[in-house]
Amino acid sequence: MLTAYEINRAVEQALAEDCPTGDITVESTIPADATGSARLVAREPGVLSGITVFAAAFAVQDSRITIAPSHDDGYRFTAGESLATVSGPVRGILTAERVALNFTQHMSGIATKTRAFVDAVHTTCEGNGLKEPWIVDTRKTLPGLRQFEKYAVLCGGGHNHRFGLSDAVMVKDNHLAAMKEAGLDMPAALRAIRSKISHTTTIEVEVDSLDQIPLALQGGADTIMLDNFSLDDTRRGVKLIAGRATVEASGNMTLERIPDVARTGVDIISVGALTHSVRAIDLGLDWE
Amino acid sequence: MLTAYEINRAVEQALAEDCPTGDITVESTIPADATGSARLVAREPGVLSGITVFAAAFAVQDSRITIAPSHDDGYRFTAGESLATVSGPVRGILTAERVALNFTQHMSGIATKTRAFVDAVHTTCEGNGLKEPWIVDTRKTLPGLRQFEKYAVLCGGGHNHRFGLSDAVMVKDNHLAAMKEAGLDMPAALRAIRSKISHTTTIEVEVDSLDQIPLALQGGADTIMLDNFSLDDTRRGVKLIAGRATVEASGNMTLERIPDVARTGVDIISVGALTHSVRAIDLGLDWE
Amino acid sequence: MLTAYEINRAVEQALAEDCPTGDITVESTIPADATGSARLVAREPGVLSGITVFAAAFAVQDSRITIAPSHDDGYRFTAGESLATVSGPVRGILTAERVALNFTQHMSGIATKTRAFVDAVHTTCEGNGLKEPWIVDTRKTLPGLRQFEKYAVLCGGGHNHRFGLSDAVMVKDNHLAAMKEAGLDMPAALRAIRSKISHTTTIEVEVDSLDQIPLALQGGADTIMLDNFSLDDTRRGVKLIAGRATVEASGNMTLERIPDVARTGVDIISVGALTHSVRAIDLGLDWE
Amino acid sequence: MLTAYEINRAVEQALAEDCPTGDITVESTIPADATGSARLVAREPGVLSGITVFAAAFAVQDSRITIAPSHDDGYRFTAGESLATVSGPVRGILTAERVALNFTQHMSGIATKTRAFVDAVHTTCEGNGLKEPWIVDTRKTLPGLRQFEKYAVLCGGGHNHRFGLSDAVMVKDNHLAAMKEAGLDMPAALRAIRSKISHTTTIEVEVDSLDQIPLALQGGADTIMLDNFSLDDTRRGVKLIAGRATVEASGNMTLERIPDVARTGVDIISVGALTHSVRAIDLGLDWE
Amino acid sequence: MLTAYEINRAVEQALAEDCPTGDITVESTIPADATGSARLVAREPGVLSGITVFAAAFAVQDSRITIAPSHDDGYRFTAGESLATVSGPVRGILTAERVALNFTQHMSGIATKTRAFVDAVHTTCEGNGLKEPWIVDTRKTLPGLRQFEKYAVLCGGGHNHRFGLSDAVMVKDNHLAAMKEAGLDMPAALRAIRSKISHTTTIEVEVDSLDQIPLALQGGADTIMLDNFSLDDTRRGVKLIAGRATVEASGNMTLERIPDVARTGVDIISVGALTHSVRAIDLGLDWE
Amino acid sequence: MLTAYEINRAVEQALAEDCPTGDITVESTIPADATGSARLVAREPGVLSGITVFAAAFAVQDSRITIAPSHDDGYRFTAGESLATVSGPVRGILTAERVALNFTQHMSGIATKTRAFVDAVHTTCEGNGLKEPWIVDTRKTLPGLRQFEKYAVLCGGGHNHRFGLSDAVMVKDNHLAAMKEAGLDMPAALRAIRSKISHTTTIEVEVDSLDQIPLALQGGADTIMLDNFSLDDTRRGVKLIAGRATVEASGNMTLERIPDVARTGVDIISVGALTHSVRAIDLGLDWE
Repeated sequence: MLTAYEINRAVEQALAEDCPTGDITVESTIPADATGSARLVAREPGVLSGITVFAAAFAVQDSRITIAPSHDDGYRFTAGESLATVSGPVRGILTAERVALNFTQHMSGIATKTRAFVDAVHTTCEGNGLKEPWIVDTRKTLPGLRQFEKYAVLCGGGHNHRFGLSDAVMVKDNHLAAMKEAGLDMPAALRAIRSKISHTTTIEVEVDSLDQIPLALQGGADTIMLDNFSLDDTRRGVKLIAGRATVEASGNMTLERIPDVARTGVDIISVGALTHSVRAIDLGLDWE
Repeated sequence: MLTAYEINRAVEQALAEDCPTGDITVESTIPADATGSARLVAREPGVLSGITVFAAAFAVQDSRITIAPSHDDGYRFTAGESLATVSGPVRGILTAERVALNFTQHMSGIATKTRAFVDAVHTTCEGNGLKEPWIVDTRKTLPGLRQFEKYAVLCGGGHNHRFGLSDAVMVKDNHLAAMKEAGLDMPAALRAIRSKISHTTTIEVEVDSLDQIPLALQGGADTIMLDNFSLDDTRRGVKLIAGRATVEASGNMTLERIPDVARTGVDIISVGALTHSVRAIDLGLDWE
Repeated sequence: MLTAYEINRAVEQALAEDCPTGDITVESTIPADATGSARLVAREPGVLSGITVFAAAFAVQDSRITIAPSHDDGYRFTAGESLATVSGPVRGILTAERVALNFTQHMSGIATKTRAFVDAVHTTCEGNGLKEPWIVDTRKTLPGLRQFEKYAVLCGGGHNHRFGLSDAVMVKDNHLAAMKEAGLDMPAALRAIRSKISHTTTIEVEVDSLDQIPLALQGGADTIMLDNFSLDDTRRGVKLIAGRATVEASGNMTLERIPDVARTGVDIISVGALTHSVRAIDLGLDWE
Repeated sequence: MLTAYEINRAVEQALAEDCPTGDITVESTIPADATGSARLVAREPGVLSGITVFAAAFAVQDSRITIAPSHDDGYRFTAGESLATVSGPVRGILTAERVALNFTQHMSGIATKTRAFVDAVHTTCEGNGLKEPWIVDTRKTLPGLRQFEKYAVLCGGGHNHRFGLSDAVMVKDNHLAAMKEAGLDMPAALRAIRSKISHTTTIEVEVDSLDQIPLALQGGADTIMLDNFSLDDTRRGVKLIAGRATVEASGNMTLERIPDVARTGVDIISVGALTHSVRAIDLGLDWE
Repeated sequence: MLTAYEINRAVEQALAEDCPTGDITVESTIPADATGSARLVAREPGVLSGITVFAAAFAVQDSRITIAPSHDDGYRFTAGESLATVSGPVRGILTAERVALNFTQHMSGIATKTRAFVDAVHTTCEGNGLKEPWIVDTRKTLPGLRQFEKYAVLCGGGHNHRFGLSDAVMVKDNHLAAMKEAGLDMPAALRAIRSKISHTTTIEVEVDSLDQIPLALQGGADTIMLDNFSLDDTRRGVKLIAGRATVEASGNMTLERIPDVARTGVDIISVGALTHSVRAIDLGLDWE
Repeated sequence: MLTAYEINRAVEQALAEDCPTGDITVESTIPADATGSARLVAREPGVLSGITVFAAAFAVQDSRITIAPSHDDGYRFTAGESLATVSGPVRGILTAERVALNFTQHMSGIATKTRAFVDAVHTTCEGNGLKEPWIVDTRKTLPGLRQFEKYAVLCGGGHNHRFGLSDAVMVKDNHLAAMKEAGLDMPAALRAIRSKISHTTTIEVEVDSLDQIPLALQGGADTIMLDNFSLDDTRRGVKLIAGRATVEASGNMTLERIPDVARTGVDIISVGALTHSVRAIDLGLDWE
């Protein structure tokens, strides 16, 4: 969840970026006492995310602006639907409009994309007695926006992977190679890591082939990530692991491939494109 | 151009976002004195942007890491090409890797997309005696990243529109409506604006129909933006304006539509999607 | 225009500078619940600037303090006139008083000085059928205060030159010399610059002699600055340019020289002393 | 003394203010690899202050720029004298030039003005067996620049008054009135204050008339400020105090009045105009 | 006294430290609209300090939370006593609880410890006609918390020593040795220092033996600190100084030694342990 | 692990806190070009922590100061031992000394205290075939210093609990009560939580009585915290849990109680006093 002070900090930075020394158009055209009202309208269907950030952009710009959201984040809207009403000084509304939209269009873009992946999983698994794997994000986020993007993934029905390098262990080949030089095979390496980290922290191991899986299990991995596995190998991996660790499938996960991957029985499907390649949802402000 | 302190500020913020309290994987696996070398490799073709930001991410993380770029920003690379070498403490390289890539993949994504638009213009106009209109960005950027994104547009051969609300006037229907209530028609409104702003600042007017163009010219607009005009109306607009103002075409500019728009004779084509909907270019770090 | 968050940021920085760890006089003399009221009084005539910054200083110090301005910025006051009333907790009023005055006295000093230049232009031109050139500021501002100082220039009836290095081009001899080394004469240099900058950005060229003017016009300069020209040469320059570019006169512009310069027909007179050498206007707080 | 991190912080803020998104002139005219050398030259006589800030502006902009000062702060220069040499990348030198000069011209303006006051005291007292009173600054400084301005006063041979509200007590009529309401006359009030503050902190009392002086002495004031006293009353005040407290003369202290005030025997003369009304010293950068 | 913006800044930093990306427990268990009320309860006796910081932690987290303190800072509470009531959204109260307590428990720990020292002085001196020396803090504070810790010392009945290196002079052996190399003995050194600092600034000299005292007095020291003196030497020092300077006793001041030191007649006893070795007072939040 | 930019940020903040406007003692006594060398010496035995922070304090103050540590963090030193050498400009060394010591004395205080607890565990368990439970910290840290304090716990041989509210779930009675109102018993509540959080995040449940343990296990708790359990109940709890979850003992853990608690078979013992009530280790700088 986004904290109020983090939202305000980000919004203030964005307003200062867009309007460092005043909005010279508004100041030379709009009377300081003009008031008005506008609606946030969807120009295409999607899933809403960032409505409190949208509101904060106007409130930070001018505390006299009031925002009445029509829906909460996570709402699936259709084209033409009104999502919020913004009322107050026209100058402030016009000045903050672009920043408000830039946040909400990007975040709704992520939520909408995530929802498509989650829906694909649901459609595949529902009614077939299959467990629905989670769609999760990655660390491939835009600098400075991770918290906003990870929140948007939740709005779309997805789940979050670790937030960053400090809150969970992710062991890759480089790490294992270094441990091997120190005389530790994978099980010993994982146990050595476990002895150093917090008891509240989990260990995920990225494996490139099936034969690494028994070693990861032996070392007590909490999660095993099957990196770029074929569908067949993914199925074999799930069987090998047999519930003894969470299974994550990763690598080039497109919407087209999701149904097949979902059927392999993995617990988690991580999708970098949720955040690194986002199409903004078209939203606009219509004056009343 | 990106300033060194702005790059450092953004990179430090991004590193703190990804690694607020240390990289627990690296610290429990990699010896503090291990050194190594890796290459930045393109996994697909594209246009490079952000190589100095890439370098700064490692240098800020650990000043002992050295980076040797093989190419400057703007370089068109092919899949498999090496773009830079990173050498030094393995811990710092691994910790900063994701931040370095997140910047460069996004910026190269923008540069690559911009280049596609610029090339489409060039192919259309070259050899036909047609002036090549500029491809320019908009204010539809990701909060906190505008300077990086606008720089990436330049790397792709594009040009920048105004940076934000403070450096150029953009008059839209709301502004004109407010001026009209104050008894000023468009020419009078534009002259009133001109009397207040800096002599170094230009005025752009967004028009929705051909009949507004004579009024904009009469008011001395520097640039006239034809908003969502049909191709026919765009051509008529160009003819009406006849070089007395810069002509910008705007609204839903896809790569497919660019050749036709380029042939209308406009000076500027603005494309929001250059920055609001970006696909990251796939780059990776290969250890040697 | 000053934005609310920029005012608050600057005021908070100034209060922390003056009162980093509490006002030890007030805390050991004034009861925490004492309330009172004081008036901002002019001790000499001048032009008001910074009344919202004045108000913000008290409001940031203690949100219970209310400020009622008697006049807007730009108002010409006489000695002894009351400009605002400040009411609320005495502690907060006394603690914030100096910061509030430091901003307002400096800004009003700039507005008053600017007004003197603008009035000199007006007196000279009015009734003689002469166009009144604008009085504009420069980049010779005090570090950290540019936005406040440029706003004060507006309050005094002046206009702003470019805000800084990022929003307009100003070509001087150093730049032209570098271009010449690259094989470009002035017209070619200016066209090369134009091909790189935003279409919303203007180019100003500083010339040292009359013979540079035709080259600047040929290159398409938007503004030509006549640097330290004699009055005769200024008149010749205006005639040469003949409306094809904005004409700016610059260099050692004192109040005494303004009438003569205004009569030359230039469009713009830039005055560094508006901001680099300011006499504070004497304002004080009188308790009721 | 200015600390290195404070200088860097202020310089970085000033560079970002002047050049938020790049120096568009320099970038479109000067080759990235061009190097050169320039001298800081005085265009009028004065006293140097801020040479390390001058140097820092260039070093922060581009760490490859080297600065060789010819003189230390406090040096009295004549018109035409060279004060420092700046060498390195031309782009960085041109971009940072204005910020470097804005600091140094303002600070040298303060040092020069202070030196004039200190010299006036010296000329008056020397050879007449008179003790030379100190010239000190006040809290009437420009927001955000206090540390720089107070340092400049030292460079001109002056002394500093308290830094702000937190480091010394200054009792004025408002404070005494509040204490009186609480039943404490001046001596009791001063003793009450003393009982609360640090033993390292001094108490200064501002008096409006001679009859307050015995009360201030009785209360143990460390410094007594004679506010807007006539010369006769100032002399009487000095006699009354008779060395039992430091005596400060304050109020409208112009250079013309200094000799007379210096002869009264006061210890300290505080001059608000040292910092609130400063004329910049004309310095420039001459390329070699 | 703590300023409101300093409190808010510190509290916001602390909340961001504890809850950088949301309180994942609260968000997955407590409904967003749940409200409740809790009391701040003492689990052991002590002296209250930081109740406004406590309140600010909740208010910054969620402005809808209201806090009603039952007592002011400085209040001596017993185990089980209620000190404040916190009401509002349960989520915000739970999230900010730890930060609020961390500040208040630490500050009350300092106030309680200080009170014990002050009480020991009082019990020793009262009724025996002895002047009560002040208990003062030192610069041995925890980084970033000095203002909070020094305020807590005041809440416990103590006094503050200098805030830091900028507001008072403290001359130690290193400084004197350097002056000696420059040819200045202690009296000359102290006079040289006095000639450079503000007239509002005092000089304290740390002496290691009785024979340095006459030199310190001769140089005009405002305070003489007897560093690690025996009780006998302390008494001799007090007699030697005879009221001509403030006398500070310093060095390993435990609660046990205080009565003896208090009886020596010193003015000031400085105690590093007040802030460098603090036991938190046990406070808790009890839900109603 | 502490990151370099976090250390620098904290050190710069601390230096600015102690020395906001210069070290007036050093500046008026020590020549700017004086250089010297000093040793960091232990005045009592302890465990070292913060030697890189110690070094950074000097390096940030003056980059010409060099620091040569004799030992790494975690080293057990005896009284009188030299821990590092500091060489360079005397001014900078004296000015930064207190900040450097304040960090290191506090951090070494934590490391030393932690080591005592860890040693008590080791002595108890070693040779008796008992597994050694970890000593871990809590969120009862000093605001702004959590990262430094948690790192110091590691230096003392301890382990870290969760960093804050964002990286692990800790379910307490308040949370469970809210879930119960929503119709969810503990197992259902824990499963509901698990469905929302990252797969990399663990759930700890605080229980007050033995009968809650089966419910916590049923809900899939990763860690069960026995809050203020008697030794007998702790033993029973360990038996009940039987390795199906990590067992943490918490509540009033003094050094005296550690051996008994260690023998109960718990995995983790959390000790708030490691960070909330710290005695600084006496370290000093001795000049050579």
